[in-house]
Amino acid sequence: MKRLGLVGLGQFGQLAARTLKDHFDVVATDAAPDAPARASAAGVAYASLEEVAGCEIVVVAVPVAVMREVFGQIAPLVKPGALVIDVGSVKVLPVTWMQELLPAHVEIVATHPLFGPQSVARDGLPGLRFVVCPVRGERFEKVAAFGRSLGLAVTVTTAEEHDREMAYVQALTHLIGRSLVNLGIPDEELATPSYQHLLELCGLIRNDTFELFAAIQTQNPYAPEVAKAFVAQAQSLLEQVASGKTA
Amino acid sequence: MKRLGLVGLGQFGQLAARTLKDHFDVVATDAAPDAPARASAAGVAYASLEEVAGCEIVVVAVPVAVMREVFGQIAPLVKPGALVIDVGSVKVLPVTWMQELLPAHVEIVATHPLFGPQSVARDGLPGLRFVVCPVRGERFEKVAAFGRSLGLAVTVTTAEEHDREMAYVQALTHLIGRSLVNLGIPDEELATPSYQHLLELCGLIRNDTFELFAAIQTQNPYAPEVAKAFVAQAQSLLEQVASGKTA
Repeated sequence: MKRLGLVGLGQFGQLAARTLKDHFDVVATDAAPDAPARASAAGVAYASLEEVAGCEIVVVAVPVAVMREVFGQIAPLVKPGALVIDVGSVKVLPVTWMQELLPAHVEIVATHPLFGPQSVARDGLPGLRFVVCPVRGERFEKVAAFGRSLGLAVTVTTAEEHDREMAYVQALTHLIGRSLVNLGIPDEELATPSYQHLLELCGLIRNDTFELFAAIQTQNPYAPEVAKAFVAQAQSLLEQVASGKTA
Repeated sequence: MKRLGLVGLGQFGQLAARTLKDHFDVVATDAAPDAPARASAAGVAYASLEEVAGCEIVVVAVPVAVMREVFGQIAPLVKPGALVIDVGSVKVLPVTWMQELLPAHVEIVATHPLFGPQSVARDGLPGLRFVVCPVRGERFEKVAAFGRSLGLAVTVTTAEEHDREMAYVQALTHLIGRSLVNLGIPDEELATPSYQHLLELCGLIRNDTFELFAAIQTQNPYAPEVAKAFVAQAQSLLEQVASGKTA
């Protein structure tokens, strides 16, 4: 089995460790004080950043907010011919950082697994969406094939196209959902099917942190435009109604 | 069978005619030139407004926009002891108009059937929601019992409570849905369950007219407040994110 180094043992990193250990010889690291315990809980070996970054395949599973820093840390440690993969939920910024900071002698693939421990625990991996963006070299094909071998629904696309879609899929849903949650919309007896969709959207994002919300709105370069266009549209509709216009 | 006069043979009026003719001796009228044909298509007798308004039970099924005028027209025609019922999708305004315009010698019940020909054709009447608001006299109990005998899910409440709930259930969903439709949100390959809710909301309201939208936003006294609060909330969230605040 190839040796795979995993940087980051947060919620998604631990899921990655548990999934990848059947297919690779996984060593993992994390800056958290309890990193060795997390590695052990996920059934993989704990190692230093040096050792992890020196593997044939290096998977970076840290929050986008600290990703640039982590790429800078592993840049002098990665071996010629290695493959570096990120799993961030936006793609334009991580791709820019990897191209800028990682030495020319490594290949690069950017990915976005559109799932987390909850969805995997509930439904299993098969059918879940996995986005693969070619960045440097041809090994994105192996990454896509590996995803398919796990039963994932793989989409190969560019970082720009990914973020453009996600501006709708993530930024807009979280803006609307969080606004409704903050408004405290009531679970009305008179709910219609349309209103049920709003209530269920609230249920899906009710427990997300403000930090996640801010990340979704700021780390995707296309998000502000879509979010602002939605608010402007709603405002314009209310103005049309108030002015008695009929268009 | 009691004689029931139906004022209005639009989409909902025709559905009402087809439903009520098995339980009442229905005569119907409408200002449209093809009113006799509409009555005949619904299987009920066409009659003048005088004859219709003179029935033991009078159901007013006209758009809220012309309802005040219609109450004024039938006011001198209704018989002592008659029961007048409206079926508008808002309740505060029709109730105010009925109390103001209809003579003290008639009883009044306001209703809102939360369904139309499409939902009935698809699912049948049983389980559909029917709101009954007592206005004048005790016959709301008979109206509620009749709704239950058709299998409808009957809610007895006040006009104010109805409109307060509907400000969320209708005004908010139509504001969000219409904004998304106008924005042209794409059916993305990377759609998540949250985004699916927005796409399905768009599907449900895509074909509604601007007139219906304006009516929902203006004929419910509680709608502007809820709609504005939503837009203000979304705007405030985007400002918080832009300013880098974390609350």
